[in-house]
Formats: sequence, C-alpha cells, structure tokens
Amino acid sequence: MRTVDLIQRKRDGEELSREEVSFLVEGYVRAEIPDYQMSAFLMAVYFQGMTDREVSALTESMLGSGGVIDLSPVPGVKVDKHSTGGVGDKTSLIAAPLAAASGVIVPMISGRALGHTGGTLDKLEAIPGFRTDLTVDEFRGVLSQYGLAFVGQNEEIAPADGKLYTLRDLTATVESIPLIASSIMSKKLAAGLDAIVLDVKVGAGAFMKKQVEARRLAQAMVGIGRRMDKRVLALITDMEQPLGFAVGNALEIMEVSQTLQNAGPGDLTRLSLELAARMIHLGKKAATIDEAREMAQDNLVRGLGFIKFKEVVQAQGGDPRALDRFELLPNATGMREIVAPRTGYVSAINAQDIGRAALMIGGGRGDAAVAVDPAVGLILEVKVGDRVDSGSVLCRIYYTAEDHVEEAADLVEDAFRISGQPPDVRETILEVVS
Amino acid sequence: MRTVDLIQRKRDGEELSREEVSFLVEGYVRAEIPDYQMSAFLMAVYFQGMTDREVSALTESMLGSGGVIDLSPVPGVKVDKHSTGGVGDKTSLIAAPLAAASGVIVPMISGRALGHTGGTLDKLEAIPGFRTDLTVDEFRGVLSQYGLAFVGQNEEIAPADGKLYTLRDLTATVESIPLIASSIMSKKLAAGLDAIVLDVKVGAGAFMKKQVEARRLAQAMVGIGRRMDKRVLALITDMEQPLGFAVGNALEIMEVSQTLQNAGPGDLTRLSLELAARMIHLGKKAATIDEAREMAQDNLVRGLGFIKFKEVVQAQGGDPRALDRFELLPNATGMREIVAPRTGYVSAINAQDIGRAALMIGGGRGDAAVAVDPAVGLILEVKVGDRVDSGSVLCRIYYTAEDHVEEAADLVEDAFRISGQPPDVRETILEVVS
Repeated sequence: MRTVDLIQRKRDGEELSREEVSFLVEGYVRAEIPDYQMSAFLMAVYFQGMTDREVSALTESMLGSGGVIDLSPVPGVKVDKHSTGGVGDKTSLIAAPLAAASGVIVPMISGRALGHTGGTLDKLEAIPGFRTDLTVDEFRGVLSQYGLAFVGQNEEIAPADGKLYTLRDLTATVESIPLIASSIMSKKLAAGLDAIVLDVKVGAGAFMKKQVEARRLAQAMVGIGRRMDKRVLALITDMEQPLGFAVGNALEIMEVSQTLQNAGPGDLTRLSLELAARMIHLGKKAATIDEAREMAQDNLVRGLGFIKFKEVVQAQGGDPRALDRFELLPNATGMREIVAPRTGYVSAINAQDIGRAALMIGGGRGDAAVAVDPAVGLILEVKVGDRVDSGSVLCRIYYTAEDHVEEAADLVEDAFRISGQPPDVRETILEVVS
Repeated sequence: MRTVDLIQRKRDGEELSREEVSFLVEGYVRAEIPDYQMSAFLMAVYFQGMTDREVSALTESMLGSGGVIDLSPVPGVKVDKHSTGGVGDKTSLIAAPLAAASGVIVPMISGRALGHTGGTLDKLEAIPGFRTDLTVDEFRGVLSQYGLAFVGQNEEIAPADGKLYTLRDLTATVESIPLIASSIMSKKLAAGLDAIVLDVKVGAGAFMKKQVEARRLAQAMVGIGRRMDKRVLALITDMEQPLGFAVGNALEIMEVSQTLQNAGPGDLTRLSLELAARMIHLGKKAATIDEAREMAQDNLVRGLGFIKFKEVVQAQGGDPRALDRFELLPNATGMREIVAPRTGYVSAINAQDIGRAALMIGGGRGDAAVAVDPAVGLILEVKVGDRVDSGSVLCRIYYTAEDHVEEAADLVEDAFRISGQPPDVRETILEVVS
C-alpha cells in the first residue's frame, strides 16, 4: 500500500477501505507517513468528502491510536454531552448536574477555549482550587461517588486527533464535516461512553454558519455513533447571539450558579433543561422524553442540580462557597458600559464579535499557549428582541487591564443592531437529529 | 501574509495576486514555508485550478527562483522544442537538426526518462562518448558553432520547480494543468528562448489521456508564453500507439539516424518535419509555414539534418560513426519475438504497455536513481491499421538480462489488439494551438 496511491484515490473521489484509512492514520501517528502527504490527503478529503463507512473507519482508527479511559468499574449508563462551541455556552455545567441528579453517570471530558469560543475547563478553573487535571483513578473515584466528574482531554486519548488537528489548523483543512465529526467522536468514544448528546451550534458565533451544514455535521456524528453501537442524538441550536447574558469564565460560573437555582436567563435555562432531559432519556432513567423533561425540570426546581454541582466542585478541590458568594471568584477591576445609540429593538447581537471582544481583553485563547484571565468578560443587559431606549446600557465590559478595552468596546458596539421594527423570533433549539 | 490564509483562499476558489503567489514560491524555496503547507496548497490548486494570471505569476516566480542561462552572446533567434512525453518519441533528435540546418538556433535543454516515457538525454547517452553534462560555456560554444546543442537541466535552473515536482510526485498533485504548464514553461523560459514549439501528447501512452485535457494544457502554456512575450505554439499529437517502430535508447538512435536519412517510419517522419517547420517559422527563417515546410523537407531530402546531427554529436564528445555503423552502439544480447495470435488488422498498440515493457527490462527509470540499460528495448514490426497473419511477428523484444522478459512479453502481447475489421485511421497531428 502506497500513501500516494491512497491520496490519489481519495482525490479522484473513490472510497477507501477500512484497512486503507487505518494504514493512513496509524502510519501518520507513527511518523511513517509525513505531514506533507497527510495534508494533501486532508485537502482531498475537504473537496471529496468521505462516505459514512470511511468516516467510521477514520473515527475508529483515531480512537485506536491511543488509550481508552476504562470506565467499566463504574456501574450505570454513561452519557456525555458535547457542544461544537459557542459564545456564552455554559450548558455543560448546568445540564450535566441536572442529569446526574437523576442517576445518569456523566463522565465529562471537556476541552479548553479556542479562538472566540469558550471552554468548559477554563470556566471550571475560575472556581478557586478546582482541579481539572485528575488522574484516571481520581476521575473514576469522583464519578463513582457523585455520578459526575470533569476532566481535561488527556494526551493519551486519541493522539492521532491531536496531531491531525494541529496539521489541519495550519493547512486550511479544519472546515471539513467528516474531519470534524471524526475528531469529536473519536475523543468522546475513547471515554467509554454509552450515549452522547451533541449540541451542534449554528450561526454567527458558531463554527457552522448555516443550518444545512450543522445538520450534515450532526448526521455524520449520529451516523458514527450508530455504526459503533452508541446512542447519539444531536440538537441543532442557535448561536447567532450569545447564550445567556454572561461571557467570560468567572462571569459564566456566576450565571451557572443562578441558572441551577432556577434564576437564570430563559434561553440558557430552556436549552440546559432540554439537554439534561435528552441525557436522562438516553441514560435510560426515563421511559419517554416527556418523562425525562419532567425529571430535569423537577431537579432544577428542587435545586438538586445545584447540590450535585457543589458536591462535585468540592470533590475536585474547588471551593463550593464561591457558587453562593461571588466575591470569592476572580473579579475584574474595571468596567465599561456600552449604551444604545438610539431607541429601537435589538435585532442582532453578533456572537462572534462578542466572543472576539472577550478574547481581546484576555478572556480566551488566541493561541493555545496563552493563559486566560478568568475575571474578565462581558455581561449583556439585553437580548435580541428587547426594546431599548437611546442611552440605555446594552452591555458591560469587565476588564483587569486597560490594554485593548477601547478596541473591544468598538467591537461590542458594532455587534449590536438596533432596528425600528422588532425582529422575528428565533428559537434556541432549531432541530433534533437522531 | 499568512500561508494558511492563502491556502484557504485558493481552497475557496479565490484568485491570488502576483505577490501572494510569489510569497508562496519564494517562501517554499527558502524553506520558510513547510512541505505540508505547500502540499495542501497544491491539492487545492488541483481542485480549484488557477487563472491565467495566477499561472503566469507562478511561472515567473519559479523562473525567478534560480539562474537563467544567458544565451545573449549567441546571435540569432533561439527556438526550443518540448514534448510532454511519450513512448518512442525521438522527434527532438530529428526536428532540432532539421531546424538548425536552416539557421535556427536550437538550445535543447532536455530531460530524462521518467516512468514509461523516454527522455532525450538518455537516448543521446546511448551514443558512445556523448556528453550531456556540458558547462554553460561549453553549451554556448557548441550552440554558437553549430546552431544546435543538447544539455541536461541544471539544478540552478528553476530550483522551485524541482522542489515542487518532488513534492507533487509524493502527494498525487502531478496531474494539474496549471502546475504542469508552469513547470514546463519555467524551465524553458529560464533558457533564454525566443520561441518554443510544444508537442503535447495525448492518448494511452501520454500523460494526458483525453484531447480536451491536452488542449487545455496547450492553451495554458501558449497563454504563459503570450504574457511573457515569447512566441509559443503547440501541436497536439497522437500517443495511442508508440511513435515510429523503435522504443529503447540505442534502438531509437538507430531510428533517428534512418529517419534523418529519409528512410524512417511515416508517422515519425511526418511529425518531425512538421515540428521542424514550426521551429523554422517561429525562428523567422521562413515567411510562411508552407515555406518553412518546404525548407524542412529539403533539409531532410538533402541530408542536411543528418550532417548537422553528426557534427553536434562529435562536438559533444560522441562517436558520429555510430550513426552509420550501429554495431558501435550498445547491443542487446537476447531477442524474443511476439507473434500475432490470429489473422486480422492491428487495431491498437497500447503505448503505455509498450513503454512499461521497455521499463521492465531496464530501458527506463521506475525510480530516478536507477541506471538505464541503453541496449534494451522493442522494435515494432507493425503499426495500427496493418494487416497481419496468424503467427507473424508483431514485435521483437531486445534484452540483456532474462529477469523480466516473460513478464514484459505478456505485457506486449496484451498491448496489441487484432480485429477482424480495419480500424479508423487516426492522424498523428491532431490539432494546432497557438
């Protein structure tokens, strides 16, 4: 088998066999296949796509390239939740405790912020003392005791994916549905899950700008799950505007705390409840999705999700008091208000611009090596559809260094559209793919 | 300017500017842009193509990446001839002396055999003593004195092309018309030419299998020439069956000698005359193409091309007596006949299979590092359209080692199609692109 022949066949739109895909992935991980051949292959995949069989083979090869977290000692049905990334997306920290409160086992293996989108690990690390670098034993221990634990991706998990992702990032081959789908699924499946609830974001602040692309990605991931005997379901959800009001790690932890106490923003609460219900249903704790929705709602109203979250925070070294006393969280030192230039209706809040503003003042990672400032961020005062008066506050920017505040403020101002007419209502949950 | 952004723009079908193309080529030659980014770019070019402006910019950047052979001390209009590669294609060795005999200055900068196609340098080196590794001074000297000289590509000529070609060969990005066109033209234009006659081969034994592809390649090269103020004309010619009867280096030198004495195969003679006429016309030694054709024919009939060729062979260290006394050329030690399995008409002789058979017995290069056996090869006894009797000889295989003779014989047998009906006549010269 010659690599150049496989590149050529993919280039010409032919289907590669399972053995051929695995030859490429394994050869690449062992550095027998050089970067320049793999990048040509990836560009050919960008143009020619992959069949369902190829995507499954790619996912399995990446999965097989590294270790698997053995969760078999932890009894129960294991359900994870994964988001393709958004701005203000803290649903994992709400849905996971709500599902775990109904007995679903939720091993949350999460990523970090990248570009203008946030990361669950960074949010958790805003809680003083919280450790995301658990050993596999510690992770299993917390999971066994509380049904929920959070950990970062381990370098031993699907190393092919890490190596491929770095290459894709440098060769303009990130935006390929089969490559995105196999990347996500190989990491998730390495965690010994039984089921996965996917939140595929679509809109200005998401990776996928169009619903048809989001649907294709969702279908690819659900298809991989089906072929590997895992229950996978995807929600396609709106990311035109940020989710909830808070963007920034400590600020989002505050909003998580409020939402788990049933005092959060409507869009965030609705989406988190639906994700939790889907997890409860796939986790076989409810016979129907309606029953699962009632359980999630009940866990929220009774504060059981909040209790669960505090327990896990404490178990992972964090200070649970910070979830009630926000002054224990990192706090910004400066604040800047953005006001409405005229009276009207908020017709758009560009999530990507808001995310980029947060990144600019230190709230995210432009480059994977840079430390994140947990204190900084933005709080929206309005959402799309709200009526505003000229001069009223649209958003507050919280910062610790003056450096890029003006630039960020300009970006935030531009992110808001104020129109004379109220905009059409856009649902948060757009579609279910299963 | 970031390389990944340029890859992405090409991937998305946008046109790159002259500066952007040059940034990529120069960065790659200086090893500032890694192979893996260039190969992704090349694959994007494979799918998206290049505009005329991009192809010209690419050619100029490759040309500018190295030295240029300064032929300005040699007076006269310089015209080269280039073939995209075929089986049994020895027209350069016939057309160039015929054109030079009319006073055209012909600096032939030639390549070596690759895969199943032959190379002019390898053919010349079958002549005892012939040196293709002339210094630039020696090359200019022979050219000044005889109006014709042969030399190999120098590593200082368009080094970007050499580096890119190696990468393309390993990443399935060879078959791209803009990349082929710029590769050929950058090398030719580095030789300080005024005009180029291109022979774009099409058919089973050629790189281009379809006439529409050959036409696109011809148009791309003619377009590059026009933008760079060079007179460029292309013939699209048949390469379904081998050209002439002989395939193999010493065997082809014998056929060159016969053809220059007006005793060669019809197809080879016709094509060589037309190429020579086009060179004479572009070289401004004739006012019309018809006048040029008469001059070429006259040079052939009067043996002036043969005299010119012998002079140059002697000037480059070769033994011109070998062109009359073939026993002075390398000779094979074994011979194997392939006979017709039935009576009928030869309807096809697959040139690629014939080329591969020659390669198999040592007549070519599967890998650039392997030495070529000049003595081996094949002589066709028939051409497409000929009537054959069952058991009559179709082809003789000349070999020096028994190793792959059986395998080669099988391939040659399969290359011939014998049908009950005579096939349609296919012209050797299919089209002119200018």
